[in-house]
Amino acid sequence: MPTTRQIVLNSRPQGWVTPENFAMREADTPELAPGDVLVRHLYMSVDPYMRGLMNEGGVAYAAGFRIGEPLFGRVIGQVAQSRNEKFREGDCVYGMLDWAEWSVAKGGESLRVVDPHLAPLSYYLGTLGFPGLTAYVGMTLIGKPKEGETVYVSAASGAVGQVAGQLARIAGARVVGSAGTDEKVRFIVGECGFHDGFNYRLFSIAEALRLYCGDGIDVNFENVGGANLEAVLQVANDFARFAMCGMISQYNLTETYHVRNLNEIVSKRLHVQGFVVRDHAHLIEPFIEETADHIARGRMSVAEDIVTGLENAPQAFIGMLQGDNLGKRVVHIADRS
Amino acid sequence: MPTTRQIVLNSRPQGWVTPENFAMREADTPELAPGDVLVRHLYMSVDPYMRGLMNEGGVAYAAGFRIGEPLFGRVIGQVAQSRNEKFREGDCVYGMLDWAEWSVAKGGESLRVVDPHLAPLSYYLGTLGFPGLTAYVGMTLIGKPKEGETVYVSAASGAVGQVAGQLARIAGARVVGSAGTDEKVRFIVGECGFHDGFNYRLFSIAEALRLYCGDGIDVNFENVGGANLEAVLQVANDFARFAMCGMISQYNLTETYHVRNLNEIVSKRLHVQGFVVRDHAHLIEPFIEETADHIARGRMSVAEDIVTGLENAPQAFIGMLQGDNLGKRVVHIADRS
Repeated sequence: MPTTRQIVLNSRPQGWVTPENFAMREADTPELAPGDVLVRHLYMSVDPYMRGLMNEGGVAYAAGFRIGEPLFGRVIGQVAQSRNEKFREGDCVYGMLDWAEWSVAKGGESLRVVDPHLAPLSYYLGTLGFPGLTAYVGMTLIGKPKEGETVYVSAASGAVGQVAGQLARIAGARVVGSAGTDEKVRFIVGECGFHDGFNYRLFSIAEALRLYCGDGIDVNFENVGGANLEAVLQVANDFARFAMCGMISQYNLTETYHVRNLNEIVSKRLHVQGFVVRDHAHLIEPFIEETADHIARGRMSVAEDIVTGLENAPQAFIGMLQGDNLGKRVVHIADRS
Repeated sequence: MPTTRQIVLNSRPQGWVTPENFAMREADTPELAPGDVLVRHLYMSVDPYMRGLMNEGGVAYAAGFRIGEPLFGRVIGQVAQSRNEKFREGDCVYGMLDWAEWSVAKGGESLRVVDPHLAPLSYYLGTLGFPGLTAYVGMTLIGKPKEGETVYVSAASGAVGQVAGQLARIAGARVVGSAGTDEKVRFIVGECGFHDGFNYRLFSIAEALRLYCGDGIDVNFENVGGANLEAVLQVANDFARFAMCGMISQYNLTETYHVRNLNEIVSKRLHVQGFVVRDHAHLIEPFIEETADHIARGRMSVAEDIVTGLENAPQAFIGMLQGDNLGKRVVHIADRS
């Protein structure tokens, strides 16, 4: 059985994540028991939600990472050996696996075969994967944008935001996005067809929203929290829907931002709904079919940001939390054979 | 036509409301034009939402009070003269009228005849009025408590809270309330049948909620905001519903409380829904019928806190914002003839 490099949690971050929170180690992959599958990792995902899993106790909806144990997340791999009749050698699979080069999926648990011909494999970690599904759930089950309404998406060039905005545009809404560089803004407007966008580092968000969302906001897809949430509360229209996907601006702060105008929730009768994509995992197959069709027909664009090498995964993750990616950040570990 | 004393807005409060924000004046009531109704005021309501109307511009859902003009709110009165065929002399009526002893309802606008035999007239400003309807809307349209669930009501002895908690109890939920004195806690538990309650001034709210809501909170009826909201976010169960009725703790602060854990909205998939009762005014008649029946059958208790004299209305309002009332505070102006 192959030896593998793994990235383990070395310490829990206080505030911003640092390289010292990770360590690399070598380990043997265990012999396969009946039902097990040996997977060679091709791509792995680094996502904002992982920041919560680095804390003691994890988060409400998932157990966290453990000190001295590999981190884990969504991986696209290829079956190298199988003692499970559902998976054949050479199959491309998607699963919740370690940050590693190789791993054994006990009983094939969490693995699902994916079609390498439908789209580039890495898309299964982004637009065709859980980030895309996250956008789909938030926009179609909560936001429900209608023709002529204004939809605002923060972190709009990210893995989730780019899909969320494009789904709203396809639904006929006017879509405004914010992102952290001019290049990202050009991407969401030029490539993704957002109606407008702004670089939140150059503006007061509240000023920008008044300027770019002059008719107010009917649907807020909240990825950022903090000052962004406060500004949206200010500009939101009565009865607006807030799909509360995440608050990436807050995850690394030891003291969170003071949102001053929560009372707008009452006075504007806002519907503020938190959601977590794993509650909706059963939608993944129809979602992939629908979204692959959008991509094939040119209705939806995809931006990926690929970092090469398992050893670069910690920095890829840290940088993503700081917004230095354009599009879905994935780590490329090996090529499909 | 009678002369009347009126209470006008003298200045806008900065932070806490003070007696200097009000002034008393005498005015003539105008002659009746066709359609007009002269009303003698019997009871008037002072409510937390009025604090928002004292600010420049009012609130999102209503125009505010104007400097030098009478404040206004819900009044129970008796028709003294009528040039409107819908109202006869002696009828008891309910309407949105000035803080005054007498007023003329132009065209009879906002007036509705009420039955003085169904319940004490003052109840139409509390349990049988918009505060009761507020509780009904929040609990039945948003909170939707189920048998065996835990419901938490803050400001629980107040006009809204006492009804909200009793509706949840009638629905079969376990109900915990908080209030600001031991006497109020005795009232909600002893009279209103809450299963438990605590004096929030004697506890850390977070500690108390862990103690009294050991199985977590499934429905939060939010009247208070600030530290109360933060503590509920901490103790809430996954998929809890938050009926966001008001944030009385924040209305008089120039700097609001820093709620630190808004991310729980995401990770616990909370449904946080603001509402304003006037969107649901069409429910008032069936609501009164249902609630009067609860009262008549002894399923629902009512606590009122009656202050006598129009001249005492400012202090009655200020004190209510500070929580010195037990039950719905109304100002008694005159007796029914």
